[in-house]
Amino acid sequence: MIRGVLLDLAGVIYEGETALPGALKAVDRLRHAGLSLRFVTNTTRMTKSMVLQRLSRLGLDVTDSELFTPAQAVREWLARNDCSPSLLVHPNLVQEFEDVPIRTHRAVVVGDAGEAFFYASLNRAFRELIGGAQLIALAKNRSFKDADGLLSLDAGAFVAALEFATQRKALVFGKPAPEFFEAALTSMDCPPKHAVIVGDDAEADVAGALRAGLGSAVLVRTGKYRPGDEERFDPPPTVTVESLSAAADWIVAHSPTSLSC
Amino acid sequence: MIRGVLLDLAGVIYEGETALPGALKAVDRLRHAGLSLRFVTNTTRMTKSMVLQRLSRLGLDVTDSELFTPAQAVREWLARNDCSPSLLVHPNLVQEFEDVPIRTHRAVVVGDAGEAFFYASLNRAFRELIGGAQLIALAKNRSFKDADGLLSLDAGAFVAALEFATQRKALVFGKPAPEFFEAALTSMDCPPKHAVIVGDDAEADVAGALRAGLGSAVLVRTGKYRPGDEERFDPPPTVTVESLSAAADWIVAHSPTSLSC
Repeated sequence: MIRGVLLDLAGVIYEGETALPGALKAVDRLRHAGLSLRFVTNTTRMTKSMVLQRLSRLGLDVTDSELFTPAQAVREWLARNDCSPSLLVHPNLVQEFEDVPIRTHRAVVVGDAGEAFFYASLNRAFRELIGGAQLIALAKNRSFKDADGLLSLDAGAFVAALEFATQRKALVFGKPAPEFFEAALTSMDCPPKHAVIVGDDAEADVAGALRAGLGSAVLVRTGKYRPGDEERFDPPPTVTVESLSAAADWIVAHSPTSLSC
Repeated sequence: MIRGVLLDLAGVIYEGETALPGALKAVDRLRHAGLSLRFVTNTTRMTKSMVLQRLSRLGLDVTDSELFTPAQAVREWLARNDCSPSLLVHPNLVQEFEDVPIRTHRAVVVGDAGEAFFYASLNRAFRELIGGAQLIALAKNRSFKDADGLLSLDAGAFVAALEFATQRKALVFGKPAPEFFEAALTSMDCPPKHAVIVGDDAEADVAGALRAGLGSAVLVRTGKYRPGDEERFDPPPTVTVESLSAAADWIVAHSPTSLSC
């Protein structure tokens, strides 16, 4: 029985500044079925408050505590590990780390920096890493669906570049890191087996969540989905559907009527 | 018995425009001992003729047929496979491919592009690759010793980025590709077991050559060498010495006197 729902954002609820057809009504339907919802995004081109503002502009009221971003998880890790960040991130995301004090250790924090990825910025990061800094990946997605409708390189490619050059593995924070899913589930007091995720990324969202112990995972054929994705990663999705609207139908059919998680 | 010698260039014979101490005399000593020499470089920031000119300026006469570069190997592969290149290389290297005609298939050719690595150029390459182009790496070195004396990111990091994003492996052409060593050895009619390599890269030069069947490999503590490199890769070097001068002493001691390969 499904009691808690994790929803990916880009490619599931919106694309750019536009809500996907039927997505907002689907979120409403899930809420009215008494299910607990959390929103889990690997977006690292916006601060958490920018994401909340975008959702609000679309007409979706989401509170700060319902939204989980990799930057938030990394901030907490940096504090616990007495680390200052050296940022290789999108200019929008810099303010998310502005108030972090100078600490004993150093970590190179890599997000989807977009145009801020260039030889000198990557080489500066490489030199910090061979000097002893920890490599931290806000996310390690391979690609995302860009504004022109085509796939573009995501942070994962650049994390892989630095891993290869330094022969060290990054600590990865967004999906598919099990801790990321667990934090969202814990916040709604939902055991993993009673939770489902809806995502357009068969690897980070779907296979990642199932590996983290979630009971089920719905792959939607929107966003970055490409034909064959449902068979490309292990474990495969529990079910593959056209859109969040169809995913909501499936989830409601598998949930106890009007029972809160 | 050693009869043929492969010599790496940057970090072994020169650094930038300067010959390393004793290196030119060491090359002379090897030639006068009757050994066959070939020069094998993974440099992809210069055309073959630029490399020959640099050697000539240093006072080293090397012929076109004694020097092996990855660009040359890739040109031959492109012709055999009816492929046109889409270049992600250093501006200096573009002319090496200028006369390649338009052919049926496409290949993305990646070298050490330096400042020509930036988000848009890498993303363009990524999109060509998911469109079906073959990924070709002129070399896959992790780092090189830069003009400021520190290590900098080499082509390998960017090849790894594209491999990760596309989930496909590159065809690698420079060292440690076995075909690269074999082409040099064949040109001097030297069986691998009678050949030695001298390099400053414990992975691409030393472990690569030994895996390709060379009888021995000498690691020099010049160029990009860092303490511990002799134990970092498998197989380890046959011997590790201070410089090309000491390498020449070791090689001459292990070669038949005045016997040509």
